[in-house]
Formats: sequence, structure tokens, C-alpha cells
Amino acid sequence: MSAALRVNRDRLRAALEEMSRFGATERGGLHRLALSDEDREARRCLVDWCSNAGFDVQVDRMGSIYATRAGRSPDAPPLMIGSHLDSQPYGGRYDGPIGVLAAYEVMRSLDDLGIETEHPVQLVDWTNEEGARFRPPLVASGVFAGVYDLDFGLACRDDSGLSLGSELDRIGFAGTLQPGWPLAGYIEIHIEQGTVLEHAGKPIGLVTGVVGIRDLIVRVRGEDTHAGPLDMHLRRDALVGAAEMIVAANSIGLAHAPDARATVGRISVPSNSHSVVPGFAEFVLDMRHPEASALAALERELTDAMDKIAARRKLSVAFEDMWSYPPVAFDPAIHKAISESAAALGLETMALPSRAGHDAWNMARIAPAAMIFIPCRDGISHNELEHAEFEHIAASADVLLGAVVRLARGV
Amino acid sequence: MSAALRVNRDRLRAALEEMSRFGATERGGLHRLALSDEDREARRCLVDWCSNAGFDVQVDRMGSIYATRAGRSPDAPPLMIGSHLDSQPYGGRYDGPIGVLAAYEVMRSLDDLGIETEHPVQLVDWTNEEGARFRPPLVASGVFAGVYDLDFGLACRDDSGLSLGSELDRIGFAGTLQPGWPLAGYIEIHIEQGTVLEHAGKPIGLVTGVVGIRDLIVRVRGEDTHAGPLDMHLRRDALVGAAEMIVAANSIGLAHAPDARATVGRISVPSNSHSVVPGFAEFVLDMRHPEASALAALERELTDAMDKIAARRKLSVAFEDMWSYPPVAFDPAIHKAISESAAALGLETMALPSRAGHDAWNMARIAPAAMIFIPCRDGISHNELEHAEFEHIAASADVLLGAVVRLARGV
Repeated sequence: MSAALRVNRDRLRAALEEMSRFGATERGGLHRLALSDEDREARRCLVDWCSNAGFDVQVDRMGSIYATRAGRSPDAPPLMIGSHLDSQPYGGRYDGPIGVLAAYEVMRSLDDLGIETEHPVQLVDWTNEEGARFRPPLVASGVFAGVYDLDFGLACRDDSGLSLGSELDRIGFAGTLQPGWPLAGYIEIHIEQGTVLEHAGKPIGLVTGVVGIRDLIVRVRGEDTHAGPLDMHLRRDALVGAAEMIVAANSIGLAHAPDARATVGRISVPSNSHSVVPGFAEFVLDMRHPEASALAALERELTDAMDKIAARRKLSVAFEDMWSYPPVAFDPAIHKAISESAAALGLETMALPSRAGHDAWNMARIAPAAMIFIPCRDGISHNELEHAEFEHIAASADVLLGAVVRLARGV
Repeated sequence: MSAALRVNRDRLRAALEEMSRFGATERGGLHRLALSDEDREARRCLVDWCSNAGFDVQVDRMGSIYATRAGRSPDAPPLMIGSHLDSQPYGGRYDGPIGVLAAYEVMRSLDDLGIETEHPVQLVDWTNEEGARFRPPLVASGVFAGVYDLDFGLACRDDSGLSLGSELDRIGFAGTLQPGWPLAGYIEIHIEQGTVLEHAGKPIGLVTGVVGIRDLIVRVRGEDTHAGPLDMHLRRDALVGAAEMIVAANSIGLAHAPDARATVGRISVPSNSHSVVPGFAEFVLDMRHPEASALAALERELTDAMDKIAARRKLSVAFEDMWSYPPVAFDPAIHKAISESAAALGLETMALPSRAGHDAWNMARIAPAAMIFIPCRDGISHNELEHAEFEHIAASADVLLGAVVRLARGV
């Protein structure tokens, strides 16, 4: 077993600076929606780096980019490492990119250190992880893992009606490789996007799995009327009903701390006039919990509360399934390799679940998979102010390097 | 003084049916936004009717249409009667059009009855009364009355960035007449949009004035973050704060029944992602009250409540003036003519304030003005299901005819 190996910090730092230029915002974040012009520039930069380093670069039909460092055994399945380069609208520069850049740096360090591995090591940049432009999120890894058909993935549309497939054509990243092949394993580095590691003062999180996530579209119906003449007690105001439901969702989520999450991030009121009492309002309710049974109970409690609010306010409410991801447990062998690597480096670790969806979640269906988390300041993410300490990023790349050597059997 | 005169019911009914075709919706309403293709067709129809009847048709620079029936005295200022043909999105077929159609029918009936008036009688169709497409509402009568500059009116933009002026050009209704001239008076028929007349069983409302209306843009700021990782109690969720404010606005409005109104009809959450805790939310708070001092007190109570909610939730809240219309009292002489006309017809009347803004509100600044209300079913308006009984529409046209003969000194 190898001694503690370390990546090249200067090269990693330079790569992070360079990659943060594409879609950079004034406040230090990123606005780099999937398959935008900014995403195209970031992709071209990654492809150039990997090609120049001598890695074999390919693009699949969903536009995901793979860069492969050959292994000794031509038939051994690759060990895949990476994450995504796309961002939320006015998001941060760490959510996604650090997983890709650490993977690139690990492959460069293997070269520098003259390490050969039995299995090929394969970097990945997944298309449209965020789901901010094309819904659903995680769609390219979902196609890779067989969760979605390729046709479904290519047909996803953004709010302006453009399809993922046509946008891949437009930016020149519609590859020919069929997604989905056997893997020796999958490892993804990501910022925690919470405060568990920060509060515990630990630089490395050993991610035990991903919580279950359930999203419902909630539609509230009352009656449109003018904001002036009708007596207020005769109104059937769908927005007031929806507002009470949103407050209730927050209270119920808080009542099931620390494991539950209940969030409303999207709302629309089609009448959209200052002088019309809204007769219709629609919002998305996002629920999360590490345990499947508790997630189902949370959904029942929330929908019951919303039914009661609607009935009391003489409104109707209907719930439509948007998507449902069951909780996923990561692989113990991958977990062990990460843990041993961190221990060899003298880094303190902490086990914790992921409360956000990640591509690793899809990959866990078809391969041994796990994730490495690092702290981010105040847990702030999906925000331009998102921040991770470079020392933590570099430490996670070191841990990944050691885990890759262990799992891909480097000598 | 004339005996009870009556309009031609068949012609009025036919005009209502014809005019309801332009922008008709499947559910029996109207989707006829100001200066849309549908509005253009309605305007052309009105112009044809009035021209064919021998009235002098002119269009002013704001696109408002005037049709004048000459008086005996060439120098006497006209008595203006009318309303608007534009609708709310998926609104009703009575809000606006009946005031224009009754005016047309009154002028036709004056011809039929061989009545000459001292003052000219002038029909008006005001551009963009609703404010649903171009904000602010009542903008064309506002320019006529000197509340707004002509340049301001022409520069109003819709959500897609098109200006009112360019849309007037597009539909061929950019007239050359400078808006604003002396008037002998102004009378507007409208549905009540409330339930006062319906509950009292009275066919004719003598509108005493218009309540004061105050609109604020409310901006709530927290912090964007991911919907999963961060502990819920660490969130600063701007939408939950806004939702609590919307519920509070409703409760406070109800607590000041029956005179106060507090409504939120527009809300936006720019992050608009199911997986982002919103760091920003914006809504419009509309407040109404017949008394200026009570309206100011209502605003203080509402903004104080919102300040407290923001502070408790560690959010910030800011209020921006959108517009403010003080309460307006209508003219006693016009009121008396309407009242006498109704009495001559044996129609029961009831005095009540208007709780909606109407063009008559602007006109009351520059001329003796008043309004006639008729009941509408269940007070429902700004809704495709809006309904008024034809008998009430015809009765209001009869009342208007008698009032016009009295005020324009018909013989």
C-alpha cells in the first residue's frame, strides 16, 4: 500500500482560477447554466487540458465529457472520478467544478509520480447536473445509469423551449459515444453545502449515502376576483392559501429537525396582476429525509396540513408527482479506500449523509460509488457567495489520489 | 324636464353580443389585453358603428377613441360618457364594455327620439384602463386629465418590452388629437364588481366616489442556499418570510372589515428553482380604503407587521412606492341628474363607494364626474365567469339616457 501521496497544489490552484473565469459574476460566483455559451467555454478548456496532458477525450450522446488515463490491463473497467462544470443561476464556483478539477489533478499527479494503475482512471464532467436549465437534474448520469432513456434525456427542454439535444448540437458537444459501460467504481468530490463539517472542524467528510428526495407540484385553486369591490371575507384567494401552506411546510420541516427538509423554491401566480385576487397559485414542494419511511411520513404530514388549509379557506389543492429519489447508501469498499487514504494523510474525517442530490446517486445504482465532502463557509451554496478553503480542496484531492491508487491498484 | 326615456334594448343586446366576440374565451369571458390584435378588432368595430351612425370619430395620441354627437351650441363643452373595451387576462365581458356600449346606445337613442342637446355628447373608449398589459392602469384618462405627461403614457412598456406608443402604431390607433379639453361632465357605467347591490337587491348604484388606493412593491431579502444540506433553522428563506407577510396582510385587511382591502396579486421569486431556498422574493401589496387617514393607518399597520416578520426571520424588507391614488368624491350635480333619471324610471337606487379604480377617478380632477353601478353575480369580476343581467345593463343605459338629457340640456 502506498504511502501518503499529494497532488500538485500550484497546478490545482491555477486550474481552479482558470475554470472560474467562464461565466464569472461580479460578486465572485458563476452563472454557467448547462449548455450555455459559458458552459461551452468551460468544456473546451477542460478538453484542451486533458488532450494536452495525453488523456483520451471522448464525449457521449448526452454531452458528458470523459478523459481516460490508460491502465495496465486493457480489459479492466475504469475507475471513474469527477463531477460537473455547470452551475445554478448566479451560483458558486465550487459546487461541481472542484470535483472535476480534483479528478484532473489526480490524473496529472499519477503521471508526475510515475504511477501505473491496473484499471484505467476516467475523469467525467456530467451534463446538466444542476437541473436549473433543463429538468430533471442529474439527467446525464441518469441516462448513463439507465434511470432514463437517451431519448428522454435529449428531449429535456429549458424554459424557452430549447431541447438539451439541440443545445448540444449548437455548442458542438453532441458526442457519438453511447452512455453506460461497466465501471470499477465511482468517486465524486463535492462541497458539503451544509455546516456539519464546518461546525465539527473536520476537513474531510466520508459520505455515507444520499437522502431520499421527493418533489410535488402543488396547485391551489380558488376564484379570481377584483382586489377592490368584493368583501374580503367572500374571497377565495389561492395565493393566501399557498402562502399559508408555504409557512406550514417550513414549520413542519423544522419540527422534524435535524433530518427533515421541506422547501418551496418555485411559485407562480398566472393572473399576476396587482388588482386581481389570485384564483390560482402553483408551487413546488421539495422534501428530503435520510430514511424512506420517514420521508413518506413527512409527505403525508405536509399534504394533510395543506389539505386542511385548503378546506378551511374554501380552496381546492391538488398534488402532482414531480420526481422521487429513494435514499441511497454508498459502497463500503470505496468508503474504506477513502478512509484509509485520509488516515494515511493524517486528515481528520467525519461520516455524514448527503442531503443534496448528486450524480453519485445515479452511479451508485450501477457501480460501487461514494463521495468525499469538504466544508464550505456557513453552508452557503447555490449562491455567488459560496466559498471553500483552498486547503480543503487540495486535501480532498490528496485523499482522492490515495483512494484512486488503492482502488485502481496503482504501483 | 323629460319624461322617462328608454333605450333600444334589442340594439343594445346585439351590440353586447357582437362586441363580446373579439377576444372571446371558451369559458364565456374575454382575453382582450390593451392594444392586442383582439383589442384592435373591438376598436375597429366601435369605430365602424359610430361612423355609420353619423357621429364624428376621432382618436387621440394615447389611442383613446371619441365619437361625438353634435350639440346645438358649437362652443359648449361636451358631456363625455363611456368606459373601456380592454380586459384583464381571461377576464369578463362586462367590465368596461358595457360602459362604452351603453354610451353608444344612448347616442343612437337620442337620434331615434329626435332629441337635440345644447352640449355635444361624446362617447369615449379609454386605452389601457386595466393596466394588465401596460402599467399603470387608467393611463390614458390620466394623460387626458394631466395626471401623467403624454411622453410618460406613450413610453409605458409591457412585460415583453413593447411600448404603448409602438403598439398603437402597430394596430393603427396612434391618433393625432392632443388629449385633454374642457368637458361639461363625465359619466361612466360599470359593473359594481362587489356584492353590495346584489345583496341589497337594488338594480342601480349611485357611486359616491372612489376609495383611495395605495400600492407598494415589497422586497424581501434573505440568503439563497441549497434546499438540502443546510440545517433548516439556519436558513434565511425570503419566500417563507414573504408568505407569512401575505397571510398577515390578509388577516389585517379582514380585521378592518368592511371598508379595508389588502391584496397581494403579484409575486416573483427570481431564483425559481425547486432546490434553492429563495434568498429574494418580491410582491405587490395593494391597499384600499374610502378614507385617506384610515388608508394611511392601514399602510402603517401592514408595513409594521412586515417589518416585525422580517426581523424575526432574520430577513430584510424594503417598501417602494408603486402608486397612490387618494380617495375621490364624485360631483353632486351629476349625482343628482342620475338620481332623478332613475327615479323617473321607477328604479330603486343605492348610494355606495367604488372600491376599484376607474377612469372616472381621473376625470373627476378636471370635470364634474360620477358613475353608475349595476350588480354583477356574486361580485365576481376580473374572471371569465363575470356575469351581469341584461335587464340591469339596459336599466343603467336608460338611467344614463335620462341623465344625459338633463345634463346636456336636451329638448
